[in-house]
Amino acid sequence: MTVDRKALLTAEQVRLACRAGVLREQTSGLAAGFAQANLVILPRDLADDFLLFCQRNPKPCPLLDVTAPGSWVPPIAAPTGDLRTDVPRYRVWRDGQLAEERDNICELWRDDFVGFVIGCSFTFEAALSRANVPVRHIEQGVNVPMYRTNIPCRPAGVFHGPLVVSMRPLKPADAIRAVQITSRYPAVHGAPVHLGLPEQLGIKDISRPDFGDAVSVASDELPVFWACGVTPQAVAMAARPPLMITHSPGCMFLTDLRDEELAVG
Amino acid sequence: MTVDRKALLTAEQVRLACRAGVLREQTSGLAAGFAQANLVILPRDLADDFLLFCQRNPKPCPLLDVTAPGSWVPPIAAPTGDLRTDVPRYRVWRDGQLAEERDNICELWRDDFVGFVIGCSFTFEAALSRANVPVRHIEQGVNVPMYRTNIPCRPAGVFHGPLVVSMRPLKPADAIRAVQITSRYPAVHGAPVHLGLPEQLGIKDISRPDFGDAVSVASDELPVFWACGVTPQAVAMAARPPLMITHSPGCMFLTDLRDEELAVG
Repeated sequence: MTVDRKALLTAEQVRLACRAGVLREQTSGLAAGFAQANLVILPRDLADDFLLFCQRNPKPCPLLDVTAPGSWVPPIAAPTGDLRTDVPRYRVWRDGQLAEERDNICELWRDDFVGFVIGCSFTFEAALSRANVPVRHIEQGVNVPMYRTNIPCRPAGVFHGPLVVSMRPLKPADAIRAVQITSRYPAVHGAPVHLGLPEQLGIKDISRPDFGDAVSVASDELPVFWACGVTPQAVAMAARPPLMITHSPGCMFLTDLRDEELAVG
Repeated sequence: MTVDRKALLTAEQVRLACRAGVLREQTSGLAAGFAQANLVILPRDLADDFLLFCQRNPKPCPLLDVTAPGSWVPPIAAPTGDLRTDVPRYRVWRDGQLAEERDNICELWRDDFVGFVIGCSFTFEAALSRANVPVRHIEQGVNVPMYRTNIPCRPAGVFHGPLVVSMRPLKPADAIRAVQITSRYPAVHGAPVHLGLPEQLGIKDISRPDFGDAVSVASDELPVFWACGVTPQAVAMAARPPLMITHSPGCMFLTDLRDEELAVG
Protein backbone atom coordinates (compact mmCIF):
# COMPACT_ATOMS: atom_id res chain seq x y z
CA MET A 1 0.00 0.00 0.00
CA THR A 2 1.41 3.39 -0.94
CA VAL A 3 0.19 6.94 -0.76
CA ASP A 4 0.07 9.81 -3.27
CA ARG A 5 2.23 12.39 -1.48
CA LYS A 6 0.68 15.22 -3.50
CA ALA A 7 -2.74 14.36 -2.10
CA LEU A 8 -1.55 15.04 1.45
CA LEU A 9 -2.47 18.73 1.67
CA THR A 10 -3.29 19.14 5.35
CA ALA A 11 -1.58 18.11 8.55
CA GLU A 12 -4.53 15.90 9.43
CA GLN A 13 -4.30 14.08 6.09
CA VAL A 14 -0.63 13.34 6.76
CA ARG A 15 -1.38 12.14 10.28
CA LEU A 16 -4.17 9.89 9.05
CA ALA A 17 -1.89 8.42 6.35
CA CYS A 18 0.66 7.59 9.05
CA ARG A 19 -2.06 6.15 11.29
CA ALA A 20 -3.32 3.96 8.44
CA GLY A 21 0.20 2.70 7.86
CA VAL A 22 0.51 4.03 4.31
CA LEU A 23 3.13 6.77 4.97
CA ARG A 24 6.44 5.40 6.24
CA GLU A 25 8.87 7.92 4.78
CA GLN A 26 10.19 11.43 5.33
CA THR A 27 7.67 14.25 5.44
CA SER A 28 9.57 17.12 3.81
CA GLY A 29 7.28 19.14 1.54
CA LEU A 30 4.05 17.51 2.73
CA ALA A 31 1.06 19.68 3.74
CA ALA A 32 2.80 22.92 2.81
CA GLY A 33 2.15 25.74 5.28
CA PHE A 34 1.60 23.42 8.27
CA ALA A 35 4.35 23.35 10.88
CA GLN A 36 6.16 20.04 11.22
CA ALA A 37 7.67 19.03 14.54
CA ASN A 38 10.30 16.95 16.28
CA LEU A 39 8.98 14.47 18.83
CA VAL A 40 10.36 13.26 22.15
CA ILE A 41 8.44 10.87 24.42
CA LEU A 42 9.63 10.08 27.94
CA PRO A 43 8.28 8.34 31.05
CA ARG A 44 6.99 10.81 33.61
CA ASP A 45 9.93 10.32 35.98
CA LEU A 46 12.22 11.77 33.30
CA ALA A 47 9.75 14.28 31.86
CA ASP A 48 10.20 16.99 34.48
CA ASP A 49 13.95 17.02 33.90
CA PHE A 50 13.43 17.17 30.15
CA LEU A 51 10.93 20.02 30.43
CA LEU A 52 13.55 21.98 32.35
CA PHE A 53 16.16 20.97 29.76
CA CYS A 54 13.99 22.47 27.01
CA GLN A 55 13.44 25.64 29.03
CA ARG A 56 17.19 26.03 29.41
CA ASN A 57 17.97 25.21 25.77
CA PRO A 58 15.27 26.95 23.76
CA LYS A 59 17.33 27.24 20.54
CA PRO A 60 17.67 23.45 19.94
CA CYS A 61 14.46 22.54 21.86
CA PRO A 62 11.72 25.14 21.25
CA LEU A 63 8.61 23.55 22.77
CA LEU A 64 5.38 23.79 20.81
CA ASP A 65 3.37 21.48 23.08
CA VAL A 66 3.65 19.03 26.00
CA THR A 67 1.06 16.34 26.64
CA ALA A 68 -0.54 15.38 29.94
CA PRO A 69 0.96 12.13 31.36
CA GLY A 70 -0.58 9.14 29.59
CA SER A 71 -2.27 11.22 26.90
CA TRP A 72 -1.25 10.80 23.28
CA VAL A 73 -3.02 13.99 22.25
CA PRO A 74 -1.02 17.22 21.96
CA PRO A 75 -3.86 19.66 22.72
CA ILE A 76 -2.26 22.80 21.29
CA ALA A 77 -0.37 21.40 18.33
CA ALA A 78 -2.89 18.83 17.05
CA PRO A 79 -6.09 18.24 19.06
CA THR A 80 -7.03 15.31 16.79
CA GLY A 81 -3.52 13.88 16.71
CA ASP A 82 -2.21 10.63 18.18
CA LEU A 83 1.45 10.57 19.15
CA ARG A 84 1.41 6.73 19.14
CA THR A 85 0.76 6.44 15.41
CA ASP A 86 1.00 9.77 13.57
CA VAL A 87 4.73 9.84 12.86
CA PRO A 88 5.94 7.82 9.83
CA ARG A 89 8.78 6.19 11.73
CA TYR A 90 9.79 6.12 15.40
CA ARG A 91 13.09 5.48 17.11
CA VAL A 92 13.25 3.73 20.47
CA TRP A 93 16.31 4.56 22.60
CA ARG A 94 17.22 2.34 25.55
CA ASP A 95 20.10 3.31 27.84
CA GLY A 96 21.37 5.74 25.19
CA GLN A 97 21.41 3.18 22.38
CA LEU A 98 19.13 3.12 19.37
CA ALA A 99 17.27 -0.11 20.16
CA GLU A 100 14.81 -0.22 17.26
CA GLU A 101 12.85 1.69 14.64
CA ARG A 102 9.07 1.15 14.55
CA ASP A 103 6.09 2.24 12.46
CA ASN A 104 4.04 2.96 15.56
CA ILE A 105 4.46 2.70 19.32
CA CYS A 106 0.99 1.45 20.31
CA GLU A 107 2.41 -1.66 21.96
CA LEU A 108 4.99 0.35 23.88
CA TRP A 109 2.66 3.04 25.14
CA ARG A 110 2.47 3.51 28.92
CA ASP A 111 0.18 5.47 31.20
CA ASP A 112 3.08 7.59 32.36
CA PHE A 113 4.37 8.70 28.93
CA VAL A 114 4.72 12.42 28.28
CA GLY A 115 5.12 13.76 24.72
CA PHE A 116 7.18 16.80 23.78
CA VAL A 117 6.43 18.46 20.44
CA ILE A 118 9.42 20.55 19.36
CA GLY A 119 9.65 23.07 16.51
CA CYS A 120 11.39 21.99 13.29
CA SER A 121 13.48 23.93 10.77
CA PHE A 122 11.17 22.95 7.89
CA THR A 123 9.11 26.01 8.92
CA PHE A 124 11.91 28.50 8.40
CA GLU A 125 13.20 26.70 5.30
CA ALA A 126 9.83 27.37 3.67
CA ALA A 127 10.23 31.04 4.62
CA LEU A 128 13.74 31.11 3.16
CA SER A 129 12.53 29.60 -0.10
CA ARG A 130 9.69 32.11 -0.35
CA ALA A 131 12.31 34.87 -0.02
CA ASN A 132 14.43 33.36 -2.79
CA VAL A 133 17.20 32.29 -0.40
CA PRO A 134 18.36 28.94 -1.80
CA VAL A 135 18.44 25.93 0.53
CA ARG A 136 21.16 23.61 -0.74
CA HIS A 137 20.03 20.26 0.68
CA ILE A 138 16.52 20.81 -0.70
CA GLU A 139 18.01 21.66 -4.12
CA GLN A 140 20.11 18.50 -3.91
CA GLY A 141 17.24 16.36 -2.63
CA VAL A 142 19.11 15.13 0.43
CA ASN A 143 18.84 15.43 4.21
CA VAL A 144 20.25 18.56 5.86
CA PRO A 145 23.82 17.99 7.18
CA MET A 146 23.99 18.00 11.00
CA TYR A 147 26.99 18.13 13.31
CA ARG A 148 27.68 17.47 16.97
CA THR A 149 29.41 20.59 18.33
CA ASN A 150 31.80 21.25 21.19
CA ILE A 151 29.13 23.48 22.76
CA PRO A 152 27.46 21.71 25.69
CA CYS A 153 23.76 22.21 26.20
CA ARG A 154 22.85 23.64 29.58
CA PRO A 155 22.25 20.49 31.66
CA ALA A 156 19.02 19.81 33.57
CA GLY A 157 18.66 16.85 35.94
CA VAL A 158 19.81 13.70 34.16
CA PHE A 159 19.93 15.39 30.76
CA HIS A 160 23.14 16.72 29.27
CA GLY A 161 24.94 16.49 25.96
CA PRO A 162 26.26 18.46 23.01
CA LEU A 163 24.38 21.00 20.93
CA VAL A 164 23.68 19.58 17.47
CA VAL A 165 23.55 22.09 14.60
CA SER A 166 22.27 21.92 11.05
CA MET A 167 24.24 23.65 8.29
CA ARG A 168 23.13 25.51 5.18
CA PRO A 169 25.78 27.08 2.89
CA LEU A 170 24.89 30.58 1.78
CA LYS A 171 26.45 33.51 -0.06
CA PRO A 172 27.19 36.34 2.43
CA ALA A 173 24.25 38.54 1.40
CA ASP A 174 21.91 35.53 1.60
CA ALA A 175 23.37 34.65 5.01
CA ILE A 176 22.47 38.13 6.26
CA ARG A 177 18.97 37.78 4.82
CA ALA A 178 18.68 34.32 6.41
CA VAL A 179 19.51 35.79 9.83
CA GLN A 180 16.73 38.32 9.35
CA ILE A 181 14.19 35.77 8.14
CA THR A 182 14.87 33.02 10.67
CA SER A 183 14.94 35.54 13.53
CA ARG A 184 11.18 35.81 12.95
CA TYR A 185 10.76 32.13 13.92
CA PRO A 186 12.06 31.61 17.47
CA ALA A 187 9.63 28.68 17.87
CA VAL A 188 11.53 26.74 15.18
CA HIS A 189 15.15 27.35 16.30
CA GLY A 190 15.18 31.04 15.29
CA ALA A 191 18.34 32.82 14.15
CA PRO A 192 21.57 30.93 13.41
CA VAL A 193 23.90 30.21 16.32
CA HIS A 194 27.06 30.51 14.25
CA LEU A 195 28.40 31.21 10.80
CA GLY A 196 31.63 31.21 8.89
CA LEU A 197 34.08 29.53 11.26
CA PRO A 198 33.09 25.85 11.77
CA GLU A 199 36.33 25.00 13.59
CA GLN A 200 35.10 27.18 16.47
CA LEU A 201 32.25 24.67 16.92
CA GLY A 202 34.71 21.78 16.94
CA ILE A 203 33.70 20.74 13.42
CA LYS A 204 36.86 19.39 11.82
CA ASP A 205 35.52 18.31 8.44
CA ILE A 206 32.43 20.04 7.07
CA SER A 207 32.12 17.33 4.42
CA ARG A 208 31.52 14.67 7.08
CA PRO A 209 28.35 15.46 9.01
CA ASP A 210 27.44 13.38 12.09
CA PHE A 211 23.81 13.08 10.94
CA GLY A 212 22.13 13.61 7.57
CA ASP A 213 23.96 14.07 4.28
CA ALA A 214 26.92 16.16 3.16
CA VAL A 215 26.32 19.10 0.84
CA SER A 216 28.92 21.16 -1.02
CA VAL A 217 30.07 24.56 0.27
CA ALA A 218 31.35 26.80 -2.56
CA SER A 219 34.31 29.15 -2.11
CA ASP A 220 31.99 32.16 -2.27
CA GLU A 221 29.72 30.75 0.45
CA LEU A 222 29.74 30.68 4.24
CA PRO A 223 28.51 27.69 6.23
CA VAL A 224 25.63 28.93 8.40
CA PHE A 225 24.66 26.91 11.48
CA TRP A 226 21.33 26.65 13.26
CA ALA A 227 20.50 24.83 16.50
CA CYS A 228 18.90 21.53 15.55
CA GLY A 229 16.01 19.42 16.82
CA VAL A 230 18.17 16.31 16.62
CA THR A 231 19.90 17.59 19.77
CA PRO A 232 17.64 15.45 22.04
CA GLN A 233 18.87 12.31 20.24
CA ALA A 234 22.49 13.31 20.91
CA VAL A 235 21.44 14.00 24.49
CA ALA A 236 19.93 10.52 24.70
CA MET A 237 23.25 9.05 23.57
CA ALA A 238 25.15 11.14 26.14
CA ALA A 239 22.79 10.93 29.13
CA ARG A 240 21.61 7.36 28.51
CA PRO A 241 18.11 7.52 29.96
CA PRO A 242 16.55 4.03 30.36
CA LEU A 243 13.89 4.84 27.74
CA MET A 244 13.31 7.66 25.24
CA ILE A 245 11.23 7.53 22.06
CA THR A 246 11.75 10.00 19.21
CA HIS A 247 10.77 10.45 15.59
CA SER A 248 13.22 9.16 13.00
CA PRO A 249 15.17 12.05 11.39
CA GLY A 250 13.13 13.67 8.62
CA CYS A 251 9.98 11.73 9.59
CA MET A 252 8.24 14.50 11.45
CA PHE A 253 4.97 14.97 13.32
CA LEU A 254 2.57 17.22 11.41
CA THR A 255 0.89 19.83 13.60
CA ASP A 256 -2.22 21.87 12.85
CA LEU A 257 -0.20 25.02 13.59
CA ARG A 258 0.50 27.09 10.50
CA ASP A 259 4.09 28.12 9.81
CA GLU A 260 3.03 31.77 9.88
CA GLU A 261 1.34 31.36 13.26
CA LEU A 262 4.83 30.73 14.59
CA ALA A 263 6.27 33.98 13.20
CA VAL A 264 6.90 37.00 15.41
CA GLY A 265 7.00 40.52 13.99
CA MET B 1 38.12 78.97 22.76
CA THR B 2 37.27 75.40 23.53
CA VAL B 3 34.17 73.55 24.62
CA ASP B 4 33.48 71.04 27.37
CA ARG B 5 32.28 68.06 25.31
CA LYS B 6 30.50 66.57 28.32
CA ALA B 7 28.30 69.65 28.57
CA LEU B 8 26.88 69.03 25.07
CA LEU B 9 23.90 66.91 26.03
CA THR B 10 21.38 67.81 23.33
CA ALA B 11 21.56 68.08 19.57
CA GLU B 12 20.76 71.79 19.78
CA GLN B 13 23.65 72.39 22.21
CA VAL B 14 26.02 70.71 19.75
CA ARG B 15 24.66 72.74 16.84
CA LEU B 16 25.00 75.98 18.80
CA ALA B 17 28.58 75.09 19.76
CA CYS B 18 29.38 74.59 16.07
CA ARG B 19 27.59 77.82 15.18
CA ALA B 20 29.58 79.72 17.81
CA GLY B 21 32.79 78.29 16.38
CA VAL B 22 33.82 76.46 19.55
CA LEU B 23 33.36 72.88 18.26
CA ARG B 24 35.59 72.01 15.32
CA GLU B 25 36.18 68.32 15.93
CA GLN B 26 34.48 64.96 15.52
CA THR B 27 31.10 64.48 17.15
CA SER B 28 31.20 60.81 18.20
CA GLY B 29 29.60 60.37 21.62
CA LEU B 30 28.10 63.86 21.83
CA ALA B 31 24.43 64.34 22.77
CA ALA B 32 23.87 60.62 23.35
CA GLY B 33 20.50 59.41 22.07
CA PHE B 34 20.22 62.03 19.33
CA ALA B 35 20.70 60.82 15.76
CA GLN B 36 23.75 62.19 13.98
CA ALA B 37 23.73 62.58 10.22
CA ASN B 38 25.83 62.79 7.09
CA LEU B 39 25.38 65.96 5.04
CA VAL B 40 25.42 66.59 1.29
CA ILE B 41 24.72 70.03 -0.20
CA LEU B 42 24.27 70.50 -3.94
CA PRO B 43 23.09 73.22 -6.32
CA ARG B 44 19.51 72.70 -7.43
CA ASP B 45 20.47 71.61 -10.97
CA LEU B 46 22.20 68.57 -9.46
CA ALA B 47 19.80 68.00 -6.58
CA ASP B 48 17.10 66.17 -8.51
CA ASP B 49 19.62 63.65 -9.80
CA PHE B 50 20.99 63.17 -6.29
CA LEU B 51 17.53 62.71 -4.80
CA LEU B 52 16.95 59.93 -7.31
CA PHE B 53 20.41 58.52 -6.52
CA CYS B 54 19.45 58.29 -2.83
CA GLN B 55 16.14 56.66 -3.72
CA ARG B 56 18.00 54.04 -5.74
CA ASN B 57 20.70 53.47 -3.12
CA PRO B 58 18.91 53.53 0.22
CA LYS B 59 21.49 51.42 2.06
CA PRO B 60 24.39 53.91 1.69
CA CYS B 61 22.13 56.98 1.39
CA PRO B 62 19.09 56.68 3.71
CA LEU B 63 17.51 60.13 3.57
CA LEU B 64 16.31 61.67 6.83
CA ASP B 65 15.50 65.11 5.38
CA VAL B 66 15.86 67.28 2.25
CA THR B 67 15.70 71.07 2.41
CA ALA B 68 13.77 73.43 0.15
CA PRO B 69 16.08 75.14 -2.40
CA GLY B 70 17.89 78.03 -0.73
CA SER B 71 16.83 77.06 2.79
CA TRP B 72 19.45 76.06 5.35
CA VAL B 73 16.81 74.62 7.67
CA PRO B 74 16.09 70.85 7.60
CA PRO B 75 12.47 71.01 8.76
CA ILE B 76 12.09 67.37 9.84
CA ALA B 77 15.54 66.66 11.21
CA ALA B 78 16.27 69.95 13.01
CA PRO B 79 13.75 72.83 12.71
CA THR B 80 16.13 75.18 14.53
CA GLY B 81 19.22 73.97 12.66
CA ASP B 82 21.37 75.84 10.15
CA LEU B 83 23.18 73.73 7.58
CA ARG B 84 25.60 76.62 6.88
CA THR B 85 27.15 76.57 10.35
CA ASP B 86 26.06 73.58 12.44
CA VAL B 87 28.59 71.01 11.31
CA PRO B 88 32.04 71.17 12.94
CA ARG B 89 33.91 70.95 9.65
CA TYR B 90 32.82 71.01 6.01
CA ARG B 91 34.43 69.70 2.86
CA VAL B 92 34.04 71.52 -0.45
CA TRP B 93 34.36 69.34 -3.55
CA ARG B 94 34.92 70.95 -6.95
CA ASP B 95 34.97 68.81 -10.10
CA GLY B 96 35.45 65.71 -7.94
CA GLN B 97 38.44 67.07 -6.04
CA LEU B 98 38.51 68.00 -2.37
CA ALA B 99 39.09 71.76 -2.81
CA GLU B 100 39.04 72.89 0.83
CA GLU B 101 37.86 72.22 4.37
CA ARG B 102 35.97 75.03 6.13
CA ASP B 103 34.48 75.74 9.56
CA ASN B 104 31.30 77.09 7.99
CA ILE B 105 29.94 77.69 4.51
CA CYS B 106 28.16 81.02 5.05
CA GLU B 107 30.22 82.75 2.38
CA LEU B 108 29.59 79.96 -0.13
CA TRP B 109 25.84 79.68 0.42
CA ARG B 110 23.64 80.16 -2.64
CA ASP B 111 19.92 80.60 -3.16
CA ASP B 112 19.78 77.36 -5.12
CA PHE B 113 21.48 75.08 -2.57
CA VAL B 114 19.63 71.94 -1.47
CA GLY B 115 20.70 70.05 1.67
CA PHE B 116 20.45 66.26 2.08
CA VAL B 117 20.53 64.91 5.63
CA ILE B 118 21.53 61.22 5.53
CA GLY B 119 21.41 58.67 8.37
CA CYS B 120 24.69 57.76 10.11
CA SER B 121 25.92 54.52 11.65
CA PHE B 122 26.51 56.20 15.04
CA THR B 123 22.83 55.42 15.72
CA PHE B 124 23.19 51.67 15.30
CA GLU B 125 26.58 51.62 17.02
CA ALA B 126 24.88 52.97 20.13
CA ALA B 127 22.32 50.16 19.84
CA LEU B 128 25.11 47.57 19.44
CA SER B 129 26.90 48.88 22.53
CA ARG B 130 23.68 48.77 24.57
CA ALA B 131 23.34 45.09 23.57
CA ASN B 132 26.92 44.34 24.66
CA VAL B 133 28.13 43.82 21.10
CA PRO B 134 31.64 45.31 21.11
CA VAL B 135 32.50 47.95 18.49
CA ARG B 136 36.22 47.70 17.86
CA HIS B 137 37.02 51.18 16.55
CA ILE B 138 35.20 52.76 19.51
CA GLU B 139 37.17 50.53 21.89
CA GLN B 140 40.38 51.57 20.13
CA GLY B 141 39.40 55.25 19.97
CA VAL B 142 39.86 55.55 16.22
CA ASN B 143 37.70 56.20 13.17
CA VAL B 144 35.78 53.28 11.66
CA PRO B 145 37.68 51.67 8.72
CA MET B 146 35.97 52.25 5.38
CA TYR B 147 36.61 50.67 1.99
CA ARG B 148 35.72 51.41 -1.61
CA THR B 149 34.12 48.24 -3.01
CA ASN B 150 33.79 46.74 -6.47
CA ILE B 151 30.00 47.08 -6.13
CA PRO B 152 28.73 49.99 -8.20
CA CYS B 153 25.91 52.08 -6.79
CA ARG B 154 22.85 52.23 -9.02
CA PRO B 155 23.52 55.36 -11.13
CA ALA B 156 21.08 58.27 -11.36
CA GLY B 157 21.64 61.13 -13.81
CA VAL B 158 25.18 62.42 -13.42
CA PHE B 159 25.79 60.46 -10.22
CA HIS B 160 27.60 57.14 -10.20
CA GLY B 161 30.39 55.53 -8.25
CA PRO B 162 31.34 52.68 -5.95
CA LEU B 163 29.58 51.62 -2.79
CA VAL B 164 31.70 52.48 0.25
CA VAL B 165 31.39 50.16 3.24
CA SER B 166 32.40 50.45 6.88
CA MET B 167 33.80 47.38 8.66
CA ARG B 168 33.41 46.13 12.21
CA PRO B 169 35.10 42.82 13.21
CA LEU B 170 32.84 40.56 15.28
CA LYS B 171 32.79 37.04 16.67
CA PRO B 172 30.24 34.93 14.71
CA ALA B 173 27.55 34.98 17.41
CA ASP B 174 27.95 38.75 17.77
CA ALA B 175 27.80 39.12 13.97
CA ILE B 176 24.43 37.33 14.00
CA ARG B 177 23.22 39.56 16.84
CA ALA B 178 24.50 42.62 14.94
CA VAL B 179 22.45 41.64 11.88
CA GLN B 180 19.36 41.44 14.10
CA ILE B 181 20.03 44.74 15.85
CA THR B 182 21.00 46.83 12.83
CA SER B 183 18.08 45.45 10.80
CA ARG B 184 15.90 47.54 13.14
CA TYR B 185 17.52 50.73 11.79
CA PRO B 186 16.96 50.93 8.02
CA ALA B 187 17.17 54.75 8.27
CA VAL B 188 20.83 54.50 9.30
CA HIS B 189 22.12 51.93 6.77
CA GLY B 190 20.26 48.97 8.31
CA ALA B 191 21.59 45.41 8.14
CA PRO B 192 25.10 44.61 6.90
CA VAL B 193 25.59 44.21 3.16
CA HIS B 194 28.29 41.57 3.50
CA LEU B 195 30.29 39.55 5.97
CA GLY B 196 33.15 37.14 6.09
CA LEU B 197 34.60 37.27 2.56
CA PRO B 198 36.10 40.75 1.91
CA GLU B 199 37.74 39.63 -1.36
CA GLN B 200 34.24 39.35 -2.83
CA LEU B 201 33.92 43.11 -2.36
CA GLY B 202 37.25 43.70 -4.09
CA ILE B 203 38.96 44.46 -0.77
CA LYS B 204 42.50 43.14 -1.15
CA ASP B 205 43.99 44.16 2.18
CA ILE B 206 41.65 44.60 5.15
CA SER B 207 44.45 46.32 7.07
CA ARG B 208 44.53 49.20 4.55
CA PRO B 209 41.16 50.99 4.53
CA ASP B 210 40.49 53.68 1.93
CA PHE B 211 39.03 56.02 4.56
CA GLY B 212 39.26 56.09 8.36
CA ASP B 213 41.64 53.96 10.41
CA ALA B 214 42.64 50.30 10.38
CA VAL B 215 41.49 48.05 13.23
CA SER B 216 42.62 44.51 14.00
CA VAL B 217 40.54 41.47 12.97
CA ALA B 218 41.23 38.47 15.24
CA SER B 219 41.31 34.90 13.91
CA ASP B 220 38.04 34.11 15.73
CA GLU B 221 36.28 37.10 14.18
CA LEU B 222 34.56 37.87 10.88
CA PRO B 223 34.77 41.25 9.17
CA VAL B 224 31.20 42.57 8.91
CA PHE B 225 30.45 45.27 6.33
CA TRP B 226 27.76 47.95 6.33
CA ALA B 227 26.88 50.42 3.58
CA CYS B 228 28.47 53.74 4.52
CA GLY B 229 27.43 57.40 4.40
CA VAL B 230 30.84 58.29 2.97
CA THR B 231 29.59 56.80 -0.33
CA PRO B 232 28.49 60.26 -1.61
CA GLN B 233 32.08 61.46 -1.24
CA ALA B 234 33.34 58.55 -3.34
CA VAL B 235 30.55 59.36 -5.80
CA ALA B 236 31.76 62.98 -5.95
CA MET B 237 35.25 61.72 -6.80
CA ALA B 238 33.86 59.43 -9.51
CA ALA B 239 31.14 61.63 -11.01
CA ARG B 240 33.01 64.95 -10.59
CA PRO B 241 30.07 67.34 -10.17
CA PRO B 242 31.17 71.01 -10.44
CA LEU B 243 30.28 71.63 -6.77
CA MET B 244 29.30 69.44 -3.81
CA ILE B 245 29.63 70.28 -0.12
CA THR B 246 29.72 67.57 2.55
CA HIS B 247 30.57 67.22 6.23
CA SER B 248 34.11 66.13 7.02
CA PRO B 249 34.21 62.41 8.05
CA GLY B 250 33.28 62.00 11.72
CA CYS B 251 32.13 65.64 12.00
CA MET B 252 28.42 65.04 11.75
CA PHE B 253 25.25 67.13 11.76
CA LEU B 254 23.28 66.63 14.99
CA THR B 255 19.55 66.15 14.40
CA ASP B 256 16.72 66.49 16.89
CA LEU B 257 15.59 62.99 15.92
CA ARG B 258 16.15 60.42 18.64
CA ASP B 259 18.00 57.23 17.72
CA GLU B 260 14.99 55.20 18.86
CA GLU B 261 12.62 57.21 16.67
CA LEU B 262 14.51 55.69 13.75
CA ALA B 263 13.97 52.09 14.89
CA VAL B 264 11.39 49.83 13.28
CA GLY B 265 9.86 46.91 15.12
